[in-house]
Amino acid sequence: MEKIIKIRALKIILFALCILLASCKKEAPKEESPAKETEQTVSNGDPLPSWNDVQVKKDIIAYVKEVTTTGGPNFIPAADRIATFDNDGTLWSEQPFYFQLFFALDQVKALAPKHPEWKTKQPFKAVLENNMEELMKQGKPGLLQIVAVSHAGMTTDAFEADVKKWISEAQHPSKKKLYKNLIYQPMLELVKYLQANQFKVFIVSGGGIDFMRAWAEDVYGIPKENIVGSTLKAKYDYNNGAPSITKLPALDFNDDKDGKPVAIEKYIGKKPVFAAGNSDGDLQMLEWAASNKYKNFELYVHHTDSVREWAYDRKSHIGTLDKGLDEGKAKNWSFVDMKNDWKVIFP
Amino acid sequence: MEKIIKIRALKIILFALCILLASCKKEAPKEESPAKETEQTVSNGDPLPSWNDVQVKKDIIAYVKEVTTTGGPNFIPAADRIATFDNDGTLWSEQPFYFQLFFALDQVKALAPKHPEWKTKQPFKAVLENNMEELMKQGKPGLLQIVAVSHAGMTTDAFEADVKKWISEAQHPSKKKLYKNLIYQPMLELVKYLQANQFKVFIVSGGGIDFMRAWAEDVYGIPKENIVGSTLKAKYDYNNGAPSITKLPALDFNDDKDGKPVAIEKYIGKKPVFAAGNSDGDLQMLEWAASNKYKNFELYVHHTDSVREWAYDRKSHIGTLDKGLDEGKAKNWSFVDMKNDWKVIFP
Repeated sequence: MEKIIKIRALKIILFALCILLASCKKEAPKEESPAKETEQTVSNGDPLPSWNDVQVKKDIIAYVKEVTTTGGPNFIPAADRIATFDNDGTLWSEQPFYFQLFFALDQVKALAPKHPEWKTKQPFKAVLENNMEELMKQGKPGLLQIVAVSHAGMTTDAFEADVKKWISEAQHPSKKKLYKNLIYQPMLELVKYLQANQFKVFIVSGGGIDFMRAWAEDVYGIPKENIVGSTLKAKYDYNNGAPSITKLPALDFNDDKDGKPVAIEKYIGKKPVFAAGNSDGDLQMLEWAASNKYKNFELYVHHTDSVREWAYDRKSHIGTLDKGLDEGKAKNWSFVDMKNDWKVIFP
Repeated sequence: MEKIIKIRALKIILFALCILLASCKKEAPKEESPAKETEQTVSNGDPLPSWNDVQVKKDIIAYVKEVTTTGGPNFIPAADRIATFDNDGTLWSEQPFYFQLFFALDQVKALAPKHPEWKTKQPFKAVLENNMEELMKQGKPGLLQIVAVSHAGMTTDAFEADVKKWISEAQHPSKKKLYKNLIYQPMLELVKYLQANQFKVFIVSGGGIDFMRAWAEDVYGIPKENIVGSTLKAKYDYNNGAPSITKLPALDFNDDKDGKPVAIEKYIGKKPVFAAGNSDGDLQMLEWAASNKYKNFELYVHHTDSVREWAYDRKSHIGTLDKGLDEGKAKNWSFVDMKNDWKVIFP
């Protein structure tokens, strides 16, 4: 029975990956040839210099000033200034696939020399030949094997080393930049602005928790212990005095949609007063923040820039923003229009 | 199948409770009539005034000075100064049962007026009649029902309110003090000393995460998001715009023994450099800290004071310290001898 449960759990984690692959055939986001980015203007004393002087920027600054003013009617004690940010599509790009899938495929390629049999064995053959169509045909069982070899069966130390190496070298196929340079400069400024005002900033992402922790502390300045994500089960071994933790090919927790408030409660134990996302997968997290007794701020990043980044929302199979767009507008949540609100996208 | 899994999971969480109840029949810890506690001496500039001037105190202070000295050979950057403390038996008492079990039994009594049928229905009848012998006879199925009514089926907000009320009122049966006053003053000083030296102090306990979070932030000064413990599964409901999270009667994670390093990796993502416990349930956490590349400190609290607290170790069914006693001595870990090393036990 345990085996059945593990396989069932893996199917859940793979479901997202399957959607990603399926989306190859479906609507692709708009991505036009990139123009030179506007030079970043740093204004003295402006905490968000990469943002144009738009309403959402004014609202963020007004909110932060209001809730950090001691004695003010909407003051929030520092201990309760919890801010939660989604990662994929909110702090860095996510097209044409979540970057973690590129990592998984790159890992298969990196491991291939030790597995000569993969040259003729699916789904590995398809990955090694960059044959996405064939990979799609392999369906969930194929992806299960890819996740198993790239994300499980090694110690947490070994996995971290794999991710660190990849993030320092791997380039995005169309943007021709390191993935870690496809982070959003304006959001980085927002994170630092909140931290400077004694907000405790957390990432709460559907991505793998240890995949993110391997680089996000350096890249975003968000400490490892403030990074929450999806988890695989894991096993401790005493290992004759050199203890290790091994990642197992079984889902522990899927940190998406309803899972986000549940993870926030589990990892943080406090409701956010500030929450930022970009998709329907973040809707429940924003609802949860919106129910805070303290004055709160909900922010949706809307991907509208087909030249500098990608343009997509309701019909995209990655980062779908459909219900969230309606509910957020109805509730007067704040929306970033990436094309018009941000002077630069990437650092 | 799902039902079977839930029941199986609950059996695991109840296992500890069953051991507790079983221990009624077995060896009880030594608890002699309490004498007046020594007056606490606060020395100026002494970070641990409730500790006698013993070797373990000198070792702690020497360690903290060494690893926080910038430029020194064993300097640890602040971001990596992770300290993890067990709770039951390490930060507060745990005899004759874990205090969380007293909470569960008290909850049954508090809920009884709404359930007149409990007067004649086991296991509730046994609880209401304070008949521990009969309660033991009810075994795991009985305890399952007690946990279900006291820890699940309510929102996280409602549960927090229950615990806050209990912790502010409930008294220990033999010590005749509020449970929250049965914390160890010397350990509180140690927590504050580490925090003052930019250690990030976490609780990593087998106790329920939201049971502890309801009071430990106020009582210990450890923020909610730094409290790690066992978890039940939970469910998010949008609830027509008043969202809530409901605790479910199914184990999510058992944060004990092998589970402690796994939880540390999951919640913190970094190895501790300082770890403190009191039982074999903490052994793996201390091993994990001992494998840190940074200079590290492992501390066992040894319950040796039958007058002011309780005396127990190898043969106790709560807080058993047997393997840990041997392994810790062999590895030269530090041991607190509560009777001889601490001027006072409770604040």
